[in-house]
Amino acid sequence: MAIIDVDAISQLYRQEVKEHAQYFSRPLRLLGILATESGASSKTYASYAKIGARDVGVEFVLREFPRIDLESAIIEANRDSNIDGIMVYYPIFSSQQDNYIKDLVDYRKDVEGLNSYWIRKLYANDRTIDGDPKRRSVLPCTPLAIVKILEEVIPYQSIDGSVPLKGKKITIFNRSEVVGRPLAAMLANDGAAVYSFDIHGPLLFVNHQLKEVSISRRDAIKDSDIVIGGVPSKNFKKITADEVKEGTICVNFSSIQNFTKEAQDKVLAFAPRVGPVTISMLLRNLVRLKNNFADGVNL
Amino acid sequence: MAIIDVDAISQLYRQEVKEHAQYFSRPLRLLGILATESGASSKTYASYAKIGARDVGVEFVLREFPRIDLESAIIEANRDSNIDGIMVYYPIFSSQQDNYIKDLVDYRKDVEGLNSYWIRKLYANDRTIDGDPKRRSVLPCTPLAIVKILEEVIPYQSIDGSVPLKGKKITIFNRSEVVGRPLAAMLANDGAAVYSFDIHGPLLFVNHQLKEVSISRRDAIKDSDIVIGGVPSKNFKKITADEVKEGTICVNFSSIQNFTKEAQDKVLAFAPRVGPVTISMLLRNLVRLKNNFADGVNL
Repeated sequence: MAIIDVDAISQLYRQEVKEHAQYFSRPLRLLGILATESGASSKTYASYAKIGARDVGVEFVLREFPRIDLESAIIEANRDSNIDGIMVYYPIFSSQQDNYIKDLVDYRKDVEGLNSYWIRKLYANDRTIDGDPKRRSVLPCTPLAIVKILEEVIPYQSIDGSVPLKGKKITIFNRSEVVGRPLAAMLANDGAAVYSFDIHGPLLFVNHQLKEVSISRRDAIKDSDIVIGGVPSKNFKKITADEVKEGTICVNFSSIQNFTKEAQDKVLAFAPRVGPVTISMLLRNLVRLKNNFADGVNL
Repeated sequence: MAIIDVDAISQLYRQEVKEHAQYFSRPLRLLGILATESGASSKTYASYAKIGARDVGVEFVLREFPRIDLESAIIEANRDSNIDGIMVYYPIFSSQQDNYIKDLVDYRKDVEGLNSYWIRKLYANDRTIDGDPKRRSVLPCTPLAIVKILEEVIPYQSIDGSVPLKGKKITIFNRSEVVGRPLAAMLANDGAAVYSFDIHGPLLFVNHQLKEVSISRRDAIKDSDIVIGGVPSKNFKKITADEVKEGTICVNFSSIQNFTKEAQDKVLAFAPRVGPVTISMLLRNLVRLKNNFADGVNL
């Protein structure tokens, strides 16, 4: 087995971002918006973003607001031409209200790629803006980070270049709108058949379509070249060595490790976390947004 | 005490809708989209909509699809010029995916008024489209139904007509994005001070703003001219006669009654349900959308 060096992959992309970022007339500016009431983990994530931004010559400004003032802070940041990208730290209200807030961020500044403008493009497999091949769509950071990690460890180029994951089977535990479902759609867009599990059971993403499927967790894992765990719950039964094959590539993106030590040791390659690559993708999206909308009203 | 006759209020608006609906060149057509896997209550709601539509001369077409085909069904209905309004029955996946689906409905056909286009207008208190006073914004059906019920039982006109609920205090139990929060914002837009409770505690909506507030449930109810219950849980402690004042107006919109029989008997006026008025608002929104976007591409 091999532990995948996510820091090295992260640095690869930071180097690329750094080179691109210097072509703009001034340093790019990313605004982090944090609710005063936020927990320690949001503050930790913000500190990682700050370090990542510094690495690539991006200015990261963190502002804290009482949660009740966050909506107006976002609306103001949308209008502020000195702000190139906006990153909001969740949870804020821990209710559906957070979804409303998420969609308030102008898609032209949405470095997380979570605005419904981008998510709709993702599900429609629409990879450009207005059909312009030079203006590429932004993808959500964490799913994108996972794809980039996989690109480093598996032969991701097909012979004709069109469907790099053709013939691959993948199992994902997590079907959230933030990571699991977009990730499943992205991998299916690249040609894989993806078993997507959540507490309600599995669905199959294949050929740009979603299908009902009846398969046990054990059979899905056994059938898969890649297994991805993202269930942040202690109630999730960790994936065991008994369930995975030796040739499998495994990725964990949950704050609570989803694979037993024995499973990690058995498989071909294992990524214990994806966070550093997620930050790189955030910064990469910032550059991409600036490229796409430099002529826009707000940038 | 008096039981508010919601059926009579509902009929009042159906009459209005019926008169308006006949001015269009063909009968308006409302599409109900139901997941095959939906429970009995969704089917019941759909049957109420069908009856309501028939009452006002609107054609209601109900189509069932496997839940995995709902997204493409909505995209197709958005494009179909024979469909004037779309009503989707939730829950479908019982996850955040339902939120994604909700926002897929074209706002120009969104009779529920739940698309983020409308919800953002609501929170910004932007009551027209492009500033045109003849093109009025659509509001979400259930909160609008509750406002219409209140308009019938309290003096809703202020002297200058600008802030009809000035000086009124209101308590709402429910802060969902579908009913409780938009309702609180609408009543605050009309001048009321609104205590909004959810499981995380109260917030105060006043003067177009959201504020943190520290007040007990008992004190909020005692302080209120209007108390609105919408908690669909058996764990919610019903509002008692001991808590409400005799002069209070109470509205229950939960499927599980939120007021004890004694509380209902004590107060000035009580609306045990709002469903029939919600259906009327759905149909009213259909007419409004058709008026607003009759020249649009899709209508």
